[in-house]
Amino acid sequence: MYYEDFPVGFQFETATRQLSLADMVGFAQLWDPQPFHVDEVAAQASPFGGIIASGFQTLIVAFRLTIDTGFFEACSMGSPGMDTVRWMAPVRPGDCLRVRAEVMSARLSGSKPDRGLVTIRYEVLNQDDQPVACYSPVQILQRTPQTDL
Amino acid sequence: MYYEDFPVGFQFETATRQLSLADMVGFAQLWDPQPFHVDEVAAQASPFGGIIASGFQTLIVAFRLTIDTGFFEACSMGSPGMDTVRWMAPVRPGDCLRVRAEVMSARLSGSKPDRGLVTIRYEVLNQDDQPVACYSPVQILQRTPQTDL
Repeated sequence: MYYEDFPVGFQFETATRQLSLADMVGFAQLWDPQPFHVDEVAAQASPFGGIIASGFQTLIVAFRLTIDTGFFEACSMGSPGMDTVRWMAPVRPGDCLRVRAEVMSARLSGSKPDRGLVTIRYEVLNQDDQPVACYSPVQILQRTPQTDL
Repeated sequence: MYYEDFPVGFQFETATRQLSLADMVGFAQLWDPQPFHVDEVAAQASPFGGIIASGFQTLIVAFRLTIDTGFFEACSMGSPGMDTVRWMAPVRPGDCLRVRAEVMSARLSGSKPDRGLVTIRYEVLNQDDQPVACYSPVQILQRTPQTDL
C-alpha cells in the first residue's frame, strides 16, 4: 500500500494484544518506574487503586499492532510528529488492546514529489470497547511508484 | 517536590544517556520493526541513510531520564495527555540524549483540592545541542501536604 491507498476516511482496525501484570511491570521497570506502574502495594494506595500500564506502553503496543497490519511496510517514511495524545482510561493487567484508525487528512508533499503526508487518528480500545488512549500522528508515505510504459 | 515547586518558568535539565546501535535495533525489534530501525542495508537505502532510533524510543528514553531526576517521585499522579510531539532530527547510533524542561502553565484542579496540573515542555537534545524531539504533556501533581499546626 502507498500514499494513494490512504484517502481521507479510510479506516482499519488491528489485531488484539493482551497485557499481563508481568508485561506492565517489566516495561515500566525499564522505562517508567513510577510506583503505580511497578509496585503493587504503592499502586493500591494510589489514585488508580492498583497497577496500571505506563501510558507510553499503551502507545507503543498500539504502534506495534499498527505496524503488524503490514499496511505501512512498503510506504512508511517516518513521521514528523503527532498531536492530541490522550490517555482516557487506565489499562489494567489482563486488558486486551486493539487499535481503530481513520485517515483524517492527506496531502502531497510540496517539496518532494515521491511522497505525501497523512494524518491518522488512532484510538486504542480495551476488551469492553472503551477508548483508553488516542493519538494523531502525521505519517510520511511514499506514493505509488510510477512505471514507464 | 510538589505542585507548588513547579511554577511557570521553572526549568531543569536531566542527565545524559547514550544510545548504541544495539540499543536502537533491540528496542525497534520489539516495538517498531520498520526497516530503517532494524535493518542496516535497508536503512542505508532509506531517506535516513542509516539506522535511526524509533521516535518512540527517543520519547521514552527522555521520559526515563526525566523520572530519574527524582523531581516527580513524591508528587506524580499521572497524565491525561500530551500535545505537540515533534521529531525534528534523526537520532543515530552513538548519540547522547538529554532533556531540557520548562513549565509552561500551572493551575490547581477545579475538582480535586489535593492536586494541580502543569504543562511542561520537554526538549530532547543530542550531544551537539541539536533538538531532536519535543513534547508537552500535562502532568497531574500532588500539592504539598498540609500539616495541622
